[in-house]
Amino acid sequence: MATFKDYAYTHFLVTSPAPFVVHVQINRPQKLNAFSEPVWREFGAVFDRLSHDPDVRAIVLSAVGDRAFSAGLDVQDASNSPLGSGLGSDPSRYATALRRHIVEFQEAIAAAEKCEKPVICVLHGISIGIAIDISCCADVRICARNTRFAVKEIDIGIAADLGTLSRLPKLVGSTSWVKDVCLSARDFSADEALSVGFVSRVFESKEAAVEAGLKLAGFIAGKSPVAVQGTKELLNHARDHSVEENLRYTTVWNSAMLQSSDFQTALMSGLSKTKPTFEKL
Amino acid sequence: MATFKDYAYTHFLVTSPAPFVVHVQINRPQKLNAFSEPVWREFGAVFDRLSHDPDVRAIVLSAVGDRAFSAGLDVQDASNSPLGSGLGSDPSRYATALRRHIVEFQEAIAAAEKCEKPVICVLHGISIGIAIDISCCADVRICARNTRFAVKEIDIGIAADLGTLSRLPKLVGSTSWVKDVCLSARDFSADEALSVGFVSRVFESKEAAVEAGLKLAGFIAGKSPVAVQGTKELLNHARDHSVEENLRYTTVWNSAMLQSSDFQTALMSGLSKTKPTFEKL
Amino acid sequence: MATFKDYAYTHFLVTSPAPFVVHVQINRPQKLNAFSEPVWREFGAVFDRLSHDPDVRAIVLSAVGDRAFSAGLDVQDASNSPLGSGLGSDPSRYATALRRHIVEFQEAIAAAEKCEKPVICVLHGISIGIAIDISCCADVRICARNTRFAVKEIDIGIAADLGTLSRLPKLVGSTSWVKDVCLSARDFSADEALSVGFVSRVFESKEAAVEAGLKLAGFIAGKSPVAVQGTKELLNHARDHSVEENLRYTTVWNSAMLQSSDFQTALMSGLSKTKPTFEKL
Amino acid sequence: MATFKDYAYTHFLVTSPAPFVVHVQINRPQKLNAFSEPVWREFGAVFDRLSHDPDVRAIVLSAVGDRAFSAGLDVQDASNSPLGSGLGSDPSRYATALRRHIVEFQEAIAAAEKCEKPVICVLHGISIGIAIDISCCADVRICARNTRFAVKEIDIGIAADLGTLSRLPKLVGSTSWVKDVCLSARDFSADEALSVGFVSRVFESKEAAVEAGLKLAGFIAGKSPVAVQGTKELLNHARDHSVEENLRYTTVWNSAMLQSSDFQTALMSGLSKTKPTFEKL
Amino acid sequence: MATFKDYAYTHFLVTSPAPFVVHVQINRPQKLNAFSEPVWREFGAVFDRLSHDPDVRAIVLSAVGDRAFSAGLDVQDASNSPLGSGLGSDPSRYATALRRHIVEFQEAIAAAEKCEKPVICVLHGISIGIAIDISCCADVRICARNTRFAVKEIDIGIAADLGTLSRLPKLVGSTSWVKDVCLSARDFSADEALSVGFVSRVFESKEAAVEAGLKLAGFIAGKSPVAVQGTKELLNHARDHSVEENLRYTTVWNSAMLQSSDFQTALMSGLSKTKPTFEKL
Amino acid sequence: MATFKDYAYTHFLVTSPAPFVVHVQINRPQKLNAFSEPVWREFGAVFDRLSHDPDVRAIVLSAVGDRAFSAGLDVQDASNSPLGSGLGSDPSRYATALRRHIVEFQEAIAAAEKCEKPVICVLHGISIGIAIDISCCADVRICARNTRFAVKEIDIGIAADLGTLSRLPKLVGSTSWVKDVCLSARDFSADEALSVGFVSRVFESKEAAVEAGLKLAGFIAGKSPVAVQGTKELLNHARDHSVEENLRYTTVWNSAMLQSSDFQTALMSGLSKTKPTFEKL
Repeated sequence: MATFKDYAYTHFLVTSPAPFVVHVQINRPQKLNAFSEPVWREFGAVFDRLSHDPDVRAIVLSAVGDRAFSAGLDVQDASNSPLGSGLGSDPSRYATALRRHIVEFQEAIAAAEKCEKPVICVLHGISIGIAIDISCCADVRICARNTRFAVKEIDIGIAADLGTLSRLPKLVGSTSWVKDVCLSARDFSADEALSVGFVSRVFESKEAAVEAGLKLAGFIAGKSPVAVQGTKELLNHARDHSVEENLRYTTVWNSAMLQSSDFQTALMSGLSKTKPTFEKL
Repeated sequence: MATFKDYAYTHFLVTSPAPFVVHVQINRPQKLNAFSEPVWREFGAVFDRLSHDPDVRAIVLSAVGDRAFSAGLDVQDASNSPLGSGLGSDPSRYATALRRHIVEFQEAIAAAEKCEKPVICVLHGISIGIAIDISCCADVRICARNTRFAVKEIDIGIAADLGTLSRLPKLVGSTSWVKDVCLSARDFSADEALSVGFVSRVFESKEAAVEAGLKLAGFIAGKSPVAVQGTKELLNHARDHSVEENLRYTTVWNSAMLQSSDFQTALMSGLSKTKPTFEKL
Repeated sequence: MATFKDYAYTHFLVTSPAPFVVHVQINRPQKLNAFSEPVWREFGAVFDRLSHDPDVRAIVLSAVGDRAFSAGLDVQDASNSPLGSGLGSDPSRYATALRRHIVEFQEAIAAAEKCEKPVICVLHGISIGIAIDISCCADVRICARNTRFAVKEIDIGIAADLGTLSRLPKLVGSTSWVKDVCLSARDFSADEALSVGFVSRVFESKEAAVEAGLKLAGFIAGKSPVAVQGTKELLNHARDHSVEENLRYTTVWNSAMLQSSDFQTALMSGLSKTKPTFEKL
Repeated sequence: MATFKDYAYTHFLVTSPAPFVVHVQINRPQKLNAFSEPVWREFGAVFDRLSHDPDVRAIVLSAVGDRAFSAGLDVQDASNSPLGSGLGSDPSRYATALRRHIVEFQEAIAAAEKCEKPVICVLHGISIGIAIDISCCADVRICARNTRFAVKEIDIGIAADLGTLSRLPKLVGSTSWVKDVCLSARDFSADEALSVGFVSRVFESKEAAVEAGLKLAGFIAGKSPVAVQGTKELLNHARDHSVEENLRYTTVWNSAMLQSSDFQTALMSGLSKTKPTFEKL
Repeated sequence: MATFKDYAYTHFLVTSPAPFVVHVQINRPQKLNAFSEPVWREFGAVFDRLSHDPDVRAIVLSAVGDRAFSAGLDVQDASNSPLGSGLGSDPSRYATALRRHIVEFQEAIAAAEKCEKPVICVLHGISIGIAIDISCCADVRICARNTRFAVKEIDIGIAADLGTLSRLPKLVGSTSWVKDVCLSARDFSADEALSVGFVSRVFESKEAAVEAGLKLAGFIAGKSPVAVQGTKELLNHARDHSVEENLRYTTVWNSAMLQSSDFQTALMSGLSKTKPTFEKL
Repeated sequence: MATFKDYAYTHFLVTSPAPFVVHVQINRPQKLNAFSEPVWREFGAVFDRLSHDPDVRAIVLSAVGDRAFSAGLDVQDASNSPLGSGLGSDPSRYATALRRHIVEFQEAIAAAEKCEKPVICVLHGISIGIAIDISCCADVRICARNTRFAVKEIDIGIAADLGTLSRLPKLVGSTSWVKDVCLSARDFSADEALSVGFVSRVFESKEAAVEAGLKLAGFIAGKSPVAVQGTKELLNHARDHSVEENLRYTTVWNSAMLQSSDFQTALMSGLSKTKPTFEKL
């Protein structure tokens, strides 16, 4: 399928299989889609750009190749980063370099969460380390039955610092389960992920999962973009604020957004049973 | 059944089927219990009053009619509200009118949450839009198997602003599921609601569900009102505060509440295996 | 099994069944492991000490005897505390005494949560009142099938104030369920606890549950202690902070912790498929 | 001066000495403007109403009579409130009555702060107890030189609970001074109030102070009401939120408010050196 | 003057110059009252004990000797602490030791803030480093004209971590000034401290300052302890919470505290112009 | 003076008058240093770059020309931004464009605050609108006596949204004064700015003020950069967090930073009375 507009990237395939739907695929299968620094910098750039693109209303994120959604950090590459190079210098200065590096890394990963359009993450195969960090930034997670998940960082002697420990406890219901998988670094299956609510659906194959993801994206892309993007914003705000704070923020948000033409458009098409056409956003 | 004391309202039936138990029923079945402005203003008034009424210890909220708990906003009525009337004027002044309107609407719905007595919401049939907002304010949710839920607002071009987006993510475990239903506006069934923890029990019929709700209400009404109402307050506070903040608040709360005569009453009746009688609250 | 180092306590058995693994057992079976003031003060002391002990990397908490993990507060003993003795005096001064007492009680219970090493709580039999407060402070909860749980405080006329109401809503996914069990004080079973995510596994017998707990503890104790303890700290911080706050804290935390020798040790042993040996922490 | 529209109240004089300027005067001089329950309930009602009145853009609050802005709580009246009547009953039930009472009292006082229009408080003479609570809710405070301030509550054996302790530390710079006057209940003068920033100007007489307050109100009333009321809202929000939270809220607020016709109106009148006329708000 | 009860400490003189007034003096003048580890551990112990002592209602903190209130950290002693000893070891493990050490140090210093009774700090002479940390924990600060203040930590290559940077910005009005003195480590005088509101009064000599501190303490000690201690608690809570949060906390606090006999006692003595006698607290 | 390294910018002069000291001057005097979009984008870029530049330890920000530090927003330019161009379109889509625009504008201005090195702002002449927003992001503010300040936004019909309303209330002590100047848009003088603590020093001329700013910057640049930059970070964190949160953050921060060689370097140079030389940061 042709590249979406001029979204040509080294490590990501970006296509548009349906109107207003964009499909982003991690495209480094020979390395099991591991994340080196160029990969995560490009990841941030892609989602930052999609965020304000008026031709985009819903995004599916998946990965090229059969074996892995992502095997996580490219450890070989990381040895060239501050993580690998600073041993021996003044610990306070090494710490400063590490801190600046982690902040940039976190911000690149978080681009999928900050993206104003909904992101549906479709996982399959090996999905460990950064794969979890990334998928935690998506709005909806679905997966193939062969997905093998793990919060793997402890096995390389570090506490995960790109978002899994920040977000996972707020994405699923059972803290006992979260701590079990985070403290042991053990694998968990698609079914286990479903039963705890980490993913909301499991499909027999990667293909079926991607198809379902694209179908959901297409369904959402047919709705009012003002309503959809407002809903994502308000739900993300809700996660980190009290009900009262969120209600206040919602009120101000909707004081502008309820003036949208989408309200009339949606009502009319509802009455006439026709498919509404919404202005770009 | 006779109206509870002088709780005579246009859109709500209020009865007391058992001591200290009040049953509130939305009573606009001919409109599928849709909420016009007079309905939600009355809703707020009913729960504000029940909150401090010493003859009330537990409340069941359900709806009259077979087809719907509530079909949500009365869209026809809404066209007379600021939502429908301000198009064309200065957007900042229209926004001000909308903001004031939403705040009042939110406060009326939140009356069920602020009510000091536990509220058990029993849903059935069509339960969409405001039905979700309202039920999110209850303490316990149970439903009939025929309940058809939907966070429907996106289908009229708006982001839900009466509380669903603020509260739903904190009521169930799976954020992936919450975003799925909020971003797609799709229906979900009683069983799905049970499996994600939105409701805690499902019954074969509306009648069975209401009966179970009243039974639970009666059971709770037999407990110490100081303990029950304190538990509701502290759990609601916990939702929006850190553990440390909640523990501090709890400490101050109980510094007065542990001086209750209910402590002795409950201990004595526990030893003597008799039913305790607690002072009014 | 021999007492771990000089951890000799009146109400707790402390042993070390495997390297870096400590097993703490509540040891007051004749009183169904009920908590009097000396018990909870000792509980706090044990966990405060384990927290900084470099010979400890994972902890299992269970209880001696067949019948009960704990029957909760020792009501008889409590009558000698401020709770039982202040009736009749100036309510503001009685409140002050109660407040100081509750704070100390809360802090003792919270020692298991503040302990820097992961705590796996293994419940069985009667597990009510304080048993819930305590287990909510553990990182992972598993139980025997015969466990009978209840948030029992309402039945003695008080709102739970030692942590259950603060922590339980953040440990499981369904608020409707949380309010149901907290407002009704009803029993719930091991299977129910599993289905809502309060425990993450259920075993046929207490013995099997304890064995599984020790096995998990042993597994975790083999990992990098810098990574494990950092993970516990960051997950606990995440519960009470926004994602953004937690990411910032994580960044600073890891700016020191990524300088650990454990990173190299873990990488090397991963490559050489050998069991790593980490420095004490 | 004639009453403003139909703002006829028992304890307050409400007039409009200039376009869009309203002057509210506490009118119970024979009782030194002390606050009984009817007074504070009316206080809340007046400001709630002014908040949304499109004919109001700035408010001056002062008091009738030479001797006192307000002598604080009407202690005689208070003995009929829950404060005076509950001694001897179950302390937990008495506490519940007190809590409900304080909440209503606080909300009435806070109406001046929640009022969307700026409030300039002009104090003179005796200004103690509730006088401080009320003035802390105003936006700007100025006073006559003869004003005698005191946070007086400790002298009747209670900690101030209507807002002084909540707001005063955020209104002035020196915490050492705040604690000094709050813990000692000592008097402080107009000059001291000025030097610590509690008031921003001092005038030789009550008349001069009221005149200056009205002049400032008139000046503000000539500005864009969208800009003025937005500024009040955003400054009040800033007090209780981080800079980052406030910037986010500001962004959403102004996304509607920058669409105001006031922007063009103000720019044009600036260029043409004419007095702008803004639409009502 | 005789030691207060059995408050015999190595580094502190504790006396009671007036009923319910306690005078704590740092007593290490030969070392310019510098803080070694035994000194700060004792500091925490003294204030923890005073906090609940019913014979104490107000505390003055000053220092023995003419030259210094305190010259700050005892750097010689610090070289034996984790701060001085860990260089060269694994930075993550050294960081852990430092973190635990700082937490204990912070908690000892904070004991003066957590102490339930008001603390008036009287400074003189050299008052640098820890002297600032400590005085920031007091409620009221006054000083002798010869006081020489400095936030000195930058001059030994560290950012202050015992509380000055946390509290100072909330104690005075001008952030520009706070950053100036914290970033430059320059000295500032008593008059400058007064003009920015760090201290609330300056006296010609140490003796005059101590006398004034004791007089204020005596004045406060004559007031209702329920009211005074509640006022300290609510003001400290206000610093770190929104107005709304503080009002809610205040409401619950006073629901018990308004039931105090001090209310009647204070009212009666006010009417009869006699000195009230309050029960111990 | 020569441009600092390759810091060549269109609207800013960047020089280094002393080791580790950088002087940034707004350089658009012909437009009274008003901010068009290219200006604020460059402003953000300059400070983002200085933040991590190891040759920079302290920054002075002033402006070229005699008449103005800055006259604020370049209104002519703004008419080409979303602010000026969207009138008439769907208000919800216009609001979206405005929101995205304001966020980018805010972030550019905030770069001076996020910059890891201390920024000393030296104001003179006309200093209105954005001049206030910018200076609020600096750490220390000083000014020439001829400075004429105003929070001017209300006079163009908008509430300030680039940071003044968020930060000013936290920079000075008197809220009454803040609201006075923000609600009236009136001018205030250098002396008034000094008396309320907005600036910490006033000089007779721009030249004297700049000289003093550079001298302070040079003084700070001679201190340990680890200590100085840590102090800025912790003070900025303190503004937006509770004391307890800040203490916890400080602890983790210093667990790495106390391992700095600067500690030994500073101690040694203190003992030897020599000027220390610190490694780059």
